[in-house]
Amino acid sequence: PETKLPKVGTTIFTVMSQLAVEHGAVNLGQGFPDFEVPARLVAALERAMREGRNQYAPMSGVPPLRQAIAGKTERCYGYRPDADAEVTVTSGASEAIFDAIHAVVRSGDEVIVLDPCYDCYEPAIDLAGGIAVHVPLHPETFAPDWTKIRAAVSPRTRMIMINSPHNPSGAMWSADDMRQLDELLAGTSIYLLSDEVYEHIIFDGRRHESALLYPSLRERAFVISSFGKTYHCTGWKIGYCIAPPAMSAEFRKVHQYNTFCTFAPAQFAFAEMIEAEPAHYEQLGAFYEAKRDRFREQLLTTRLRPLPVPGGYFQLVDYSRISDLPDAEFCRWLAIEKGVASIPLSPFYGTPPEGQRLARLCFAKNESTLDAAIERLQSL
Amino acid sequence: PETKLPKVGTTIFTVMSQLAVEHGAVNLGQGFPDFEVPARLVAALERAMREGRNQYAPMSGVPPLRQAIAGKTERCYGYRPDADAEVTVTSGASEAIFDAIHAVVRSGDEVIVLDPCYDCYEPAIDLAGGIAVHVPLHPETFAPDWTKIRAAVSPRTRMIMINSPHNPSGAMWSADDMRQLDELLAGTSIYLLSDEVYEHIIFDGRRHESALLYPSLRERAFVISSFGKTYHCTGWKIGYCIAPPAMSAEFRKVHQYNTFCTFAPAQFAFAEMIEAEPAHYEQLGAFYEAKRDRFREQLLTTRLRPLPVPGGYFQLVDYSRISDLPDAEFCRWLAIEKGVASIPLSPFYGTPPEGQRLARLCFAKNESTLDAAIERLQSL
Ligand SMILES: CSCCC(=O)C(=O)O
Ligand SMILES: CSCCC(=O)C(=O)O
Repeated sequence: PETKLPKVGTTIFTVMSQLAVEHGAVNLGQGFPDFEVPARLVAALERAMREGRNQYAPMSGVPPLRQAIAGKTERCYGYRPDADAEVTVTSGASEAIFDAIHAVVRSGDEVIVLDPCYDCYEPAIDLAGGIAVHVPLHPETFAPDWTKIRAAVSPRTRMIMINSPHNPSGAMWSADDMRQLDELLAGTSIYLLSDEVYEHIIFDGRRHESALLYPSLRERAFVISSFGKTYHCTGWKIGYCIAPPAMSAEFRKVHQYNTFCTFAPAQFAFAEMIEAEPAHYEQLGAFYEAKRDRFREQLLTTRLRPLPVPGGYFQLVDYSRISDLPDAEFCRWLAIEKGVASIPLSPFYGTPPEGQRLARLCFAKNESTLDAAIERLQSL
Repeated sequence: PETKLPKVGTTIFTVMSQLAVEHGAVNLGQGFPDFEVPARLVAALERAMREGRNQYAPMSGVPPLRQAIAGKTERCYGYRPDADAEVTVTSGASEAIFDAIHAVVRSGDEVIVLDPCYDCYEPAIDLAGGIAVHVPLHPETFAPDWTKIRAAVSPRTRMIMINSPHNPSGAMWSADDMRQLDELLAGTSIYLLSDEVYEHIIFDGRRHESALLYPSLRERAFVISSFGKTYHCTGWKIGYCIAPPAMSAEFRKVHQYNTFCTFAPAQFAFAEMIEAEPAHYEQLGAFYEAKRDRFREQLLTTRLRPLPVPGGYFQLVDYSRISDLPDAEFCRWLAIEKGVASIPLSPFYGTPPEGQRLARLCFAKNESTLDAAIERLQSL
């Protein structure tokens, strides 16, 4: 058939994971932990199955999970969303992003995306008939460039998509960035989609600038998060969207006829886990900060140059001392010849910048995995 | 926000399930079993979690599950799809239907749907920018009316959606229907979406007329099924799509940026279950046939008139001896005043037929549940 998505190929995550398997590479590419899911969560899921929670969940999510999300949101950001009208559970943050876009983006609408950005944004915009307007983040700090963002706003702008902590760079928005965003959007009817899936993986005492902290942003925002990153279970695919009632109503119209609901026993398990062990997400920053610091020290013994990582579980490295290959070729070479799978940055851009020599390494791994990768990277 | 889906409200399944809870009604509305998931399946899922199968599955599904689906398909329909290129695992059949529609339906394309049909078809067509063209099935037998279907085909027809065994009626397509369909589509580029989620719930020695049995239909078909109905776990939301390689490629472009993948541990569990206990799905028809027969006998002691049920787990009843209320009102009354939740048929139609006095009862229930419902229905 002719294609509706001519630009879409195999995702870079799939490509690099396959390469890792074929070449026995240490896989620091696709972002997922190689350590275990919390035991309480597994036990709670098993109990939910054995208690017979195996039939359709309500379309918006099981009530105890929506309540737990509302409570956790209040504890973290001082705002308690209405569990009935404002919280919707989805099949991962990816479905939530897809649904939010399909809920409001109409044919010909423009959606501002800040490059580099996660590769699912643009195809969802395309499918909805919208137009992705790419604005580059600062090439070294990955901070928003407000002059460029302001210049990109047009009467057709329907939505702006932001992501902090940022994939792939780990950059985090400042309170000043949020104020600039707020000023830009004030008086417009532009929606905000805030992808906050790394909300709990934050370092050095920083505050996560959730859109939920700002009443005037909150009222126009789809705030999207997920349990995969927080609970080391990226393959469970349970996420959620918090949005004002009228926006949630439109969001749910899409969700209802897309997946309708998601794996019910896990919903009960997350509800229990969030309530019983808030320490898990409160201490996640410290847990990953130790990994980041150790990995950074190790990288300094290689010829790769690690960039600062304010949040998230990805370490960008500058490889220009080693190679002048474009990033896609360098990452292939690194996987095949050196046995370390990484992710190039160019697939995260509408138009990749020339001459950028960066690769992304995932440090959500056991020490032994990272040690094995470092040993190989030391031969560069 | 203004709405992209003006016709969409709360689904009838949610409405009736809520009514059932509020009024303590026996819930024969929303289609889900009230008995247990096979023990082996639960154990296999637990094992998968404990073996660490908790990270992203491959986008198209885990290889052992795609292999198991290919093998089962061959055993059932004599055609073995290519597990790599033709089988994609989704978050339930609903996501698969949504993705197939979004993969090929473009703005202004027409999609033929046969009324009554499951309520997710039209909103997905609308969101994709398509136009649902409603053609009624025969009002009593729910068989396809070939004269009407032929008259509905136009140069803009992009797809036709069929469903056998049929929800809500249980009607099954005959080999002659499949031949008529084949003749109609021959020489056109019209896609077929065949929703076969009740494929194993078939009675009285009938054969399920899968589109996969017919080479010339298969080559244009998205064949969609799900494990929820077959394994008594509607809340697990794991389904799949079988389609020729080029169609699967387009399907996967949508799936990849919609949910990307689905709850990984259950994928391993289904792979094991399908291989280890083919008897489960082979005997599912007999299992439900006993329930159907017993329930029918009981209904004959009430003033409701049960219609024939060739397949599926729904029993239509004609209530015209009891009431002349339109079906939505009758079903509300039945839930609130008589304590039995059912599903009216009108939400399954573009334009509901006048004067139809039918309600749908789900018999995927323990005998005690059906007995309790019958006791209440005897007072009508
Ligand atoms: C869905 S695969 C991509 C996983 C991920 O979030 C990443 O690696 O950036
Ligand atoms: C997703 S709720 C609807 C369940 C179902 O298939 C039905 O009751 O028809």
